[in-house]
Amino acid sequence: MSLSVVIIGAVAAGPKSGCRIKRLLPDASVTMLDRDNYISYGGCGIPYYVSGDVAELKGLLSTSFHMERNAAFFQGAKGIEALPGTEALAIDRAAKTVRVRELASGAERDLPYDKLVVATGSEPFIPPIPGVELAGVYPVANLHHASAIKDLVAQGQVGTAAIIGAGATGLEMAEALADLWGVEVHVLEMAPQVLPGLLDPEMARMLETHLKAQEGVNLRLGARVERILDGWEGRAAGVVVDGETLDVDLVILATGVRPQGALARAAGLAMAPNGGIEVNERLQTSDPDIFAGGDCVSVRNILTGQALTLASGSLANRMGRVIATNVCGGSATFPGAVGSFCIKLFGLSVARTGLEKERAAAAGMDAVAPLVVQADRAHFHPDQKLMYLKLTVEKATRRVLGCAALGENGDAVVGRVNAVAGLLPLGVTVDAISNLELCYSPPLGAAVDVLNAAANTVDNLLAGLLRPISPEEFSQRLAARSEGQCVFLDVRGLDNAAPYLAALSPAWVHIPGESLSQRLDEVPRDKEVVLVCNSGVRSYEAQRVLQAAGLTNTVNVSGGVAAVKKWGEPIIPAVEEE
Amino acid sequence: MSLSVVIIGAVAAGPKSGCRIKRLLPDASVTMLDRDNYISYGGCGIPYYVSGDVAELKGLLSTSFHMERNAAFFQGAKGIEALPGTEALAIDRAAKTVRVRELASGAERDLPYDKLVVATGSEPFIPPIPGVELAGVYPVANLHHASAIKDLVAQGQVGTAAIIGAGATGLEMAEALADLWGVEVHVLEMAPQVLPGLLDPEMARMLETHLKAQEGVNLRLGARVERILDGWEGRAAGVVVDGETLDVDLVILATGVRPQGALARAAGLAMAPNGGIEVNERLQTSDPDIFAGGDCVSVRNILTGQALTLASGSLANRMGRVIATNVCGGSATFPGAVGSFCIKLFGLSVARTGLEKERAAAAGMDAVAPLVVQADRAHFHPDQKLMYLKLTVEKATRRVLGCAALGENGDAVVGRVNAVAGLLPLGVTVDAISNLELCYSPPLGAAVDVLNAAANTVDNLLAGLLRPISPEEFSQRLAARSEGQCVFLDVRGLDNAAPYLAALSPAWVHIPGESLSQRLDEVPRDKEVVLVCNSGVRSYEAQRVLQAAGLTNTVNVSGGVAAVKKWGEPIIPAVEEE
Repeated sequence: MSLSVVIIGAVAAGPKSGCRIKRLLPDASVTMLDRDNYISYGGCGIPYYVSGDVAELKGLLSTSFHMERNAAFFQGAKGIEALPGTEALAIDRAAKTVRVRELASGAERDLPYDKLVVATGSEPFIPPIPGVELAGVYPVANLHHASAIKDLVAQGQVGTAAIIGAGATGLEMAEALADLWGVEVHVLEMAPQVLPGLLDPEMARMLETHLKAQEGVNLRLGARVERILDGWEGRAAGVVVDGETLDVDLVILATGVRPQGALARAAGLAMAPNGGIEVNERLQTSDPDIFAGGDCVSVRNILTGQALTLASGSLANRMGRVIATNVCGGSATFPGAVGSFCIKLFGLSVARTGLEKERAAAAGMDAVAPLVVQADRAHFHPDQKLMYLKLTVEKATRRVLGCAALGENGDAVVGRVNAVAGLLPLGVTVDAISNLELCYSPPLGAAVDVLNAAANTVDNLLAGLLRPISPEEFSQRLAARSEGQCVFLDVRGLDNAAPYLAALSPAWVHIPGESLSQRLDEVPRDKEVVLVCNSGVRSYEAQRVLQAAGLTNTVNVSGGVAAVKKWGEPIIPAVEEE
Repeated sequence: MSLSVVIIGAVAAGPKSGCRIKRLLPDASVTMLDRDNYISYGGCGIPYYVSGDVAELKGLLSTSFHMERNAAFFQGAKGIEALPGTEALAIDRAAKTVRVRELASGAERDLPYDKLVVATGSEPFIPPIPGVELAGVYPVANLHHASAIKDLVAQGQVGTAAIIGAGATGLEMAEALADLWGVEVHVLEMAPQVLPGLLDPEMARMLETHLKAQEGVNLRLGARVERILDGWEGRAAGVVVDGETLDVDLVILATGVRPQGALARAAGLAMAPNGGIEVNERLQTSDPDIFAGGDCVSVRNILTGQALTLASGSLANRMGRVIATNVCGGSATFPGAVGSFCIKLFGLSVARTGLEKERAAAAGMDAVAPLVVQADRAHFHPDQKLMYLKLTVEKATRRVLGCAALGENGDAVVGRVNAVAGLLPLGVTVDAISNLELCYSPPLGAAVDVLNAAANTVDNLLAGLLRPISPEEFSQRLAARSEGQCVFLDVRGLDNAAPYLAALSPAWVHIPGESLSQRLDEVPRDKEVVLVCNSGVRSYEAQRVLQAAGLTNTVNVSGGVAAVKKWGEPIIPAVEEE
């Protein structure tokens, strides 16, 4: 008798596992159900539908060959019985059946299974703010929300919007509304930074500086949203944040998601404390005939061993494939995640994989992650843009724990981070990144790539050759410059240094790097010397020269003026650097 | 007494090692000499200077902060005594001196050293063609050549040029001349493909198809250049190729380079059969006080163990850093190379790392490398472009041996290949690429990335689920279609299939994938069935459906019509696919 498989959830992990099961075992009977009528859609594409980049909702529901993935498609092209608009009510593990209800008719029945796949995904977390139930308040969890929001905007009904939450979805929605529809957007984030848990504070600050420079974007960090105001007939018309009222026409709740584990929990499957379903490396639950994957499971962070839940269409697809192999009697494993992430906002892209220094510390690993700034291809090539990159490396072991990058050429940013992502589970040291053999041609890379340079910088730091300070530490010193505890030594050419000298003298002094060894006696020995150049490279050179002359009172600004400006320091002169 | 270091060669490995030696040991005495007056330049940038992308020669000679890297720069900023225009005549290993001659004055002297760095680079291979000595015939080996060529072109003296050799330099020069100056270019390559030794024949063919479509580019493969003709007063005016005379105003010799090992050989250092200097992992020669790096050394291919020489400014820089660490008493290693390469030509980028199937076979490894075609980001995102990618995987061990990719978004192409490059020395299996956690967001990647998809395709192939044929094998069958040995079954929608049916019926038949399981009896069982769709995905699905129905007489066109068109098959109808 052929294998009978039931799949609960039909967005990412569900369809992926179902389709592969049919390819591996064509005579298997596969039934896939979902509460929603929309199935197998690209949920991550919702902001791009709202913005208009994706013209029709059908774009998110279609294959690359423009065929809509509906029940008829799954039946005809995949041999899967898809049941949209059908809710799973309960799993009877003893009888090996799933009780389901067709929502339109209310009819209930039992679906028998040999193997069950639970891919119930995540649901939006609705914060306990008075007024969240009003009309005009939307989470961004499915295509119904997408459609409703876009309709409002396209009909010209939204002049101002509040977005609660500056995670990935909140920020992408902010761009969609502000950049393409001209909506005035208030992004209200409780945490002190954007993308909390996804970016380190320094990279987040660079992104915040960029966002604040955008027309129509108002970003509030550390914001406490008190309530949403009823305008007329139960329709949201304002948001009260930190005692101030903002008039808005639309409120978007982008406050994160939680795994949908109720069905699994009710069936007695083992659950993780984070609310996700417990699975082994084969993605089997505590019941060996029940597999689970996607946003609803608890995933192991490969670097820390910690359990986490991750809402990711990409991981869900990979898990779906592993589940299919194992359901069909094969042997595939999903070893966990390192946490790769990227986002593109108003022309600036940020990507990261693994751990930032702060999360490494929280997991008990003492790490460094100096900021490096360099062109993303040959510095003489006209397409070059600066990339801001950091590699997280554990001090004691030299093990690479993560990488983050930011820049205007999004594919180049993501490319560097992806080059590290696959290495993280293998425990390589920073030396592997120094020698990492990236492709080189002037239009596509640099002879010493920014990634190699970042590894070299970490190597120098761990060898005690480099004493860096961050843009934030530089800014603190600059703000306190009248106290006279340090002096800023600019080692660039006079063209670059002149406006700084004019604005910040006597705290700011200038000796070009190439004259430094002849002018050592001009360098103060009685206070800290903050070495500054455009990118941190010449100031590192200067630090070595001064060190050799017995001047140990120096620090070097990581990433130089370029990093400080990107970070958003307001004091330094507003001049274009060469 | 401080360490005395002499460095012979001042382009890439030489300056890199010298500068780091001074940072590590500031009181070391470092002398760096070069025959040429131009030192420390970006030789890979020459085509971009000729094209005009880099406006001035100084651009290739300058730091990112626009300071020219001349002797004064090295003295002032780096503390290195640089001696341009100074030739090393001989190394006296017993006396530990280098005999040098200042070329301008003819003065000779001996430079004593404690440690010697040989970074003599490579020299152009000048083919034994009658006429190579004529005026107007240039290799592309240094800035003097670059300058001479650009001057001729900029003065309007070049209407037609012959480029002998379709390696990286030859093709980049072809683009520089044709695309930006409107020069009619004949690229004459002896091998049957462009980029011989750098790309597999299939990827090379895709690039050839692209090059042939460019205005002013005439590409001849398998071309035998017989001689260069003297026009007047010893000036080249034509090239005789396969008996045909081409009138040209300029001849560029881009026939590769050879390591400059004469000095090392004369000093009795161990040399590899490939002409490179033998070095250990610390980049020491057979004399432990002499280090060598860059184009002049023999490098180990990490995957095959074979010795090779590689002209690469990128590897040279990495080697320079390792040399510096070791010269200063540290311990760094350069384990060899996997052979990463990329090039961008007329808007199309190609990258590769490791081994293609053919070179793996030559090294005794039986591998597969099916072609996969997929969007380089979410297929619904407006910026998406198709990427053509193959992963080379050894059959017996499932070990990943290489990756090659081609597409219009160059950073995205290089990004995928770089994500594999670092994994190659670690011996990962294809499963690591299936689970490779690439960053995902619709503008920057796909939920199932093309790289994950390529690994999944290899996995399916090795599991016997997929029987692919290449675009070339498809084309052979198409050319022989009147023999009736196979039938082409198009499983796309009728919109796509109609022009093919009109042009190629009865050899070409159509059953859309979603109807296939209902129309099995229409599928011939007495001949081979060639399954075709746009990208190879639906035809794979069809192959599984037919296999389940007992039809084992099918093959699937890897990458589908997209790949066949990119490859350059002229028979198929000239219609735009959806």
